[in-house]
Amino acid sequence: MKIGILGAGQLGRMLALAGYPLNLDFVFLDPATEACAAPLGSHIQAGFDDERALTEFCVSVDVASFEFENVSAESAGFVASRIPLHPSPAALTAGQDRLHEKQLFQRLGIPVPAHAAISSLEGLRQAVRQLGLPAVLKTRRMGYDGKGQAVLRSESELEAAWERLGSQPLILEQFIPFEREVSCLAVRAQDGQMRFYPLVANVHRDGILRTAIPTLADPLQREGEDYARRVAEQLDYVGVLAFEFFVAGGRLLANEIAPRVHNSGHWSIEGAECSQFENHLRAVAGLPLGGTRLRGASAMVNLIGDAPPVAELAALPGVHVHLYGKTPKPQRKIGHVTVTADHHDELLALLAPVQTLVERYAG
Amino acid sequence: MKIGILGAGQLGRMLALAGYPLNLDFVFLDPATEACAAPLGSHIQAGFDDERALTEFCVSVDVASFEFENVSAESAGFVASRIPLHPSPAALTAGQDRLHEKQLFQRLGIPVPAHAAISSLEGLRQAVRQLGLPAVLKTRRMGYDGKGQAVLRSESELEAAWERLGSQPLILEQFIPFEREVSCLAVRAQDGQMRFYPLVANVHRDGILRTAIPTLADPLQREGEDYARRVAEQLDYVGVLAFEFFVAGGRLLANEIAPRVHNSGHWSIEGAECSQFENHLRAVAGLPLGGTRLRGASAMVNLIGDAPPVAELAALPGVHVHLYGKTPKPQRKIGHVTVTADHHDELLALLAPVQTLVERYAG
Repeated sequence: MKIGILGAGQLGRMLALAGYPLNLDFVFLDPATEACAAPLGSHIQAGFDDERALTEFCVSVDVASFEFENVSAESAGFVASRIPLHPSPAALTAGQDRLHEKQLFQRLGIPVPAHAAISSLEGLRQAVRQLGLPAVLKTRRMGYDGKGQAVLRSESELEAAWERLGSQPLILEQFIPFEREVSCLAVRAQDGQMRFYPLVANVHRDGILRTAIPTLADPLQREGEDYARRVAEQLDYVGVLAFEFFVAGGRLLANEIAPRVHNSGHWSIEGAECSQFENHLRAVAGLPLGGTRLRGASAMVNLIGDAPPVAELAALPGVHVHLYGKTPKPQRKIGHVTVTADHHDELLALLAPVQTLVERYAG
Repeated sequence: MKIGILGAGQLGRMLALAGYPLNLDFVFLDPATEACAAPLGSHIQAGFDDERALTEFCVSVDVASFEFENVSAESAGFVASRIPLHPSPAALTAGQDRLHEKQLFQRLGIPVPAHAAISSLEGLRQAVRQLGLPAVLKTRRMGYDGKGQAVLRSESELEAAWERLGSQPLILEQFIPFEREVSCLAVRAQDGQMRFYPLVANVHRDGILRTAIPTLADPLQREGEDYARRVAEQLDYVGVLAFEFFVAGGRLLANEIAPRVHNSGHWSIEGAECSQFENHLRAVAGLPLGGTRLRGASAMVNLIGDAPPVAELAALPGVHVHLYGKTPKPQRKIGHVTVTADHHDELLALLAPVQTLVERYAG
């Protein structure tokens, strides 16, 4: 079976690596010249809105998915009218606008931080009076890894933030002094069956995920699964869905969803019975889902900006190296490592030297 | 780093899948049109003795290895005179001739079955009188998966066996009524460091490996490691070496070596800390070796001739599907599945239905 993927970055690369053993082949559509998934399949180098390229893409595959969630509704609709696209265009676009996304959560009874749509400086001032400070001003669309955001701590910062971001529709969100951040990775098959990975504890710095550690018997597991199920069923979702939460007052507060395999699930390649990548493909290809149980303990550390020499990483016990074939560049995700151990205590002992080494090179 | 692989079958395919995360890229040389590793790298489609193609191969890679052990000494020498080739031509050829292989084992003090070189029907009769029956007549070169062999049970069978095989140099081996067959997978780095996987219990049928199960604390582990170390050090070996043994009278008796990753180590993808494929590449690329410890319990079942529908395999708990993208054909290895579990008892319970399903389709 030939799988088409919109986007050919590291997520596409890891999907392909998971897919070959299932006899799946891959076609990627991506405008980038340095598309790190390209060596693992055919690469149609074109914009996501290039109808000629999209047509070529559709005729050359059996079923399509995406690894880049900012594919436009039009392009997704174009593909979905020709071949099966999983998740659907409606699922893809549900998280593209932060305001609509929060409205969806609210309709489904999922708690969200207080927020307001912002379309003028006056509106921003008014929302700040209602929500209080600190607060976070975000573009409604296209933000990722902390881009398109401004944390507002005093009234004096409003005008500069509006100057920087105000050319686009915005949302102001109450700043959540969270205890921790977690994500729930869920996968839903074409027949509606769902499976859930253990909640993942995520640590960000400068808006970029640094470490992700699956938790064991997290007291919020059931709540996370419940919320992910509500969203997935509402959207008749097929594939892996990532749902990011803040934990505040011991409860989950929805942050955002990503309609795709997710950085906080990379540990699952070694750390779960069936990885998020394989499970996404199983769902997309109409196969039964794989197990989401942990295999021992594991943790993922991102390689941001630059990475230690592979020989230094590979020398550390329990380390699994995943480089993406990308040119190092400040703030760029160029790889990750997963540390595995039999037990959580052993994991923490192995993890510390890995983090120290990785931090020496991160940029 | 660009790795060149002579051969582009399933072993090359699994090497590439293990190599991408280490930022390795692949060039394969193989005469086959349906070369199942080809989609994972560049494919130079040419014979292994085509000097023009070998030259192209050498200039396009940094270091070379092979997945097909019957590459000729000349071709291996041609490559090794231009770029690093691991294992070396001497290591490659050490196992190509069954007689020389046994002589090597004997020089190293490794027990072997009684045997004799055969070059005439009269010589065969004489050897049978010495070794007794049953005995196994084998071609000295190019045999695999039980091909090029005849089991002799009575004097009346000698002439027919000679007729069938006698056009090539032969070896007669005492038939070993073995208790079990095991293999020792070892890996040796460029600096001489060695690691060993747990001994694997192998079950063959019709000369083809059917199941391979790594053993836990096998009483023969140390003996297997010792023998593998003697051979690897003698050959200044770099990479994964597979050493197959008979167990008779509770001791190891050398059967044969394979200078490459081996079917009896496929379980290591999920079942060991670092797979045989990654460890081979680490050795070839000059990286530190990865851990060879077991992760829980695991077993491998080959898919021979044909395979159950992937949906049926994928539905079984603990099953990891590895299809090779090969056209089904009687006696052909077209894939394998690995079954993983936390403990050995659980493994056996999960393994039984897998074997039943696989046997229904095997041909």
